[in-house]
Amino acid sequence: MSKNKNSLIIDTTNHAAKGGLLNRRLFLSSAIATTAALATTRAAHSQEIVGEGQDDWTLYPGSDALEYSNRSRFEVDSVKRLIPNDSQEFLDLRLTKYVARTPLDHLLGTITPNGLHFERSHQGIPDIDPDKHFLVIHGKVKNPLKFDISALENYPTVSRNYYMECSGNSAVLFDETPTDQSLQEIHGLLSGSEWTGVLLSTLLDECGISPDAKWIIAEGADNGMMTRSIPLDKALDDAMIAIRQNGERIRPSQGYPMRLLNPGFEGNTSVKWLRSIYLSDRPVMSVQETAKYTDMMPDDKALQFTLEQDVKSIITRPSSAMSLKKKGVYEITGLAWSGKGKIARVEVSVDGGNTWADTALEGPIHSKMLTRFRIPWMWEGSSAILQSRAIDEFGRRQPSRKELLDARGTNGIYHYHAIHSWDVAPNGEIKHVYA
Amino acid sequence: MSKNKNSLIIDTTNHAAKGGLLNRRLFLSSAIATTAALATTRAAHSQEIVGEGQDDWTLYPGSDALEYSNRSRFEVDSVKRLIPNDSQEFLDLRLTKYVARTPLDHLLGTITPNGLHFERSHQGIPDIDPDKHFLVIHGKVKNPLKFDISALENYPTVSRNYYMECSGNSAVLFDETPTDQSLQEIHGLLSGSEWTGVLLSTLLDECGISPDAKWIIAEGADNGMMTRSIPLDKALDDAMIAIRQNGERIRPSQGYPMRLLNPGFEGNTSVKWLRSIYLSDRPVMSVQETAKYTDMMPDDKALQFTLEQDVKSIITRPSSAMSLKKKGVYEITGLAWSGKGKIARVEVSVDGGNTWADTALEGPIHSKMLTRFRIPWMWEGSSAILQSRAIDEFGRRQPSRKELLDARGTNGIYHYHAIHSWDVAPNGEIKHVYA
Repeated sequence: MSKNKNSLIIDTTNHAAKGGLLNRRLFLSSAIATTAALATTRAAHSQEIVGEGQDDWTLYPGSDALEYSNRSRFEVDSVKRLIPNDSQEFLDLRLTKYVARTPLDHLLGTITPNGLHFERSHQGIPDIDPDKHFLVIHGKVKNPLKFDISALENYPTVSRNYYMECSGNSAVLFDETPTDQSLQEIHGLLSGSEWTGVLLSTLLDECGISPDAKWIIAEGADNGMMTRSIPLDKALDDAMIAIRQNGERIRPSQGYPMRLLNPGFEGNTSVKWLRSIYLSDRPVMSVQETAKYTDMMPDDKALQFTLEQDVKSIITRPSSAMSLKKKGVYEITGLAWSGKGKIARVEVSVDGGNTWADTALEGPIHSKMLTRFRIPWMWEGSSAILQSRAIDEFGRRQPSRKELLDARGTNGIYHYHAIHSWDVAPNGEIKHVYA
Repeated sequence: MSKNKNSLIIDTTNHAAKGGLLNRRLFLSSAIATTAALATTRAAHSQEIVGEGQDDWTLYPGSDALEYSNRSRFEVDSVKRLIPNDSQEFLDLRLTKYVARTPLDHLLGTITPNGLHFERSHQGIPDIDPDKHFLVIHGKVKNPLKFDISALENYPTVSRNYYMECSGNSAVLFDETPTDQSLQEIHGLLSGSEWTGVLLSTLLDECGISPDAKWIIAEGADNGMMTRSIPLDKALDDAMIAIRQNGERIRPSQGYPMRLLNPGFEGNTSVKWLRSIYLSDRPVMSVQETAKYTDMMPDDKALQFTLEQDVKSIITRPSSAMSLKKKGVYEITGLAWSGKGKIARVEVSVDGGNTWADTALEGPIHSKMLTRFRIPWMWEGSSAILQSRAIDEFGRRQPSRKELLDARGTNGIYHYHAIHSWDVAPNGEIKHVYA
């Protein structure tokens, strides 16, 4: 009945790259099992039973079901990190608003629970009554129309998995000196969800697009009236009016009751609390696409409308949030994504980029969604530099930091996507370095 | 730049089945557009702009980010429905525990937010400190071992989308008289998640399975000490020790800090608060597999260990939770699943099963996970009976109620999976019927 009657024997000498990277299929098939026993893994993680009992929760009746279940009171650390937004704009307005970053080190898989999705707003979260809110589509259309939330829910909907990343994510890595910030602080403006909504093309079809329309201007109903211009091609491709996130209605911090969603574009273009889409023959040149969200180049000129994001990956475990307690086999895992399509391959190095090994990718791989990669690693207790690099289906390869800075200089603050390095010290401590 | 310069023209006379079922690709491609204008859809859902303004949320700064974002205060109805468990067992113990059902009518997509996952416990939810809890694997193994939560997180993990359904879901439909219960009350013991954990085969490999082991006995650390026997084949196939649900650690109501997960098996076998897996040459014959969770047949004998679930589907919109306000095009959508593998096809009828039309399935389709189906429907304001039937990749077809009762009788309370019928009255009201 059992397909393997004996303890699995693993060849921990069958390395896929230097520094202890093992074959990515280790543990996934017993067919690769060959020589050395798995004693090292056991020593590192599981424990022999030595007779001591565990706390006996069976002695007392438990608590009742709730209408909306809570997280465990022991998970207090798994929260978004609130970082004050100290830009001049906010100081002038005497507003202190936070940028809230997803605890990537506290998550596995690819879905971010709605309560932990990263959050960046320019003037706070409006408290919108959905019965009094609607989206207007107007401008260069034949029939201007408006849609409330229940109207949208009667249209044909689609559900698709997409990542979202703020274009300012990882911006601190443009700095000359390596930061001592954590994984969550550096890279936490990144989340993944199953989004449900109506394709914008469906609604534009109903309104009838005028022949000279070339851009849509999306505007939010928040105090900041976030306004962004999106090429009509994108609007007719995969843009949607999102009304649900991981099944339930999107939360106020994510744009309740409706938001624009531009898969693979910088997060800021997916305008929250959406109230207006105006079709135009030109972009509106809002503050968010002139003074901000442009890529300053070494010659002090700026690239504008660099909306589609590049290919990128990060290792989330092991990372700065943990230290390695014992020698043994660990799983190196992380996330990869591309603003253009699917992730094709992710490689990992533990020797600072000298040798690379292919990782296992968790399928099915969605276009423009986080892809989880994994590879087992035998850590022998010596120094190591952990890096990942992603390649997408179009052959775009994540650059080294040097390659990125050679091309872009250090004036930029947006779209940092170079290979990231974690330094593992012999005592098991982990910190960010440039390597 | 635009791929369609003109308003989309839809042939609403191009029916896929009787009663107004339109081609499932309507709205998904403008290539099918041919003759009649979409005026009916617009009349039903969107509105012309008549000059009135919307509430102006832009006038006031919004609220700040939170460490864990909340849902909107306007979403008060989107909660689990708590139904008292009035079985004799609980009355004897003077405990009133609830069965909490997922609001399927309030969800779209396939992921259930963790707070809304259905919930059924026999003696309540224990408040487990993860630092004092571990899983022991023992019995017919070479090396008994124990694993705490951090040990498990250092093993190679997998993330997979699986549905979970209580075997008692939809049980009221065995009754001779049609129930007036809602979608949520009838079918709400059903949810879908991205689960992350360690394959049980990985841990069993480490322990070394004795040649005469044929079953695993899983036991929970709750007051009820839920105990179920699972064939070793399943344990070595896709069973996992789940530690995370939709990214974050599973919540107390779902088995924090760890649960067994048997994809496609009746929910009760996925033992929550898992503390022991004992390998044996025989099942343990616990109360949960003798007095309960067996299928009583017409001859008063019972089938035991009917663990793998059949193929099933339900329409979630339109359903009892809503009524149709106007004539026009609506989306009929729902969920389909199979305990054995992938959903291959879902058909919908609006004339009580006389004619059927293929629906569009939202991909990628996961094995043993909810699959969302959709088809547009032109409702002309007359009576209709809405039904769905699913077929899985093995050709198993969801039976009619008559077929199910002919085979199983009406003594059963578990594993009801027949075609479900919603009656739409000319005034747009919707209720459950047998048809």
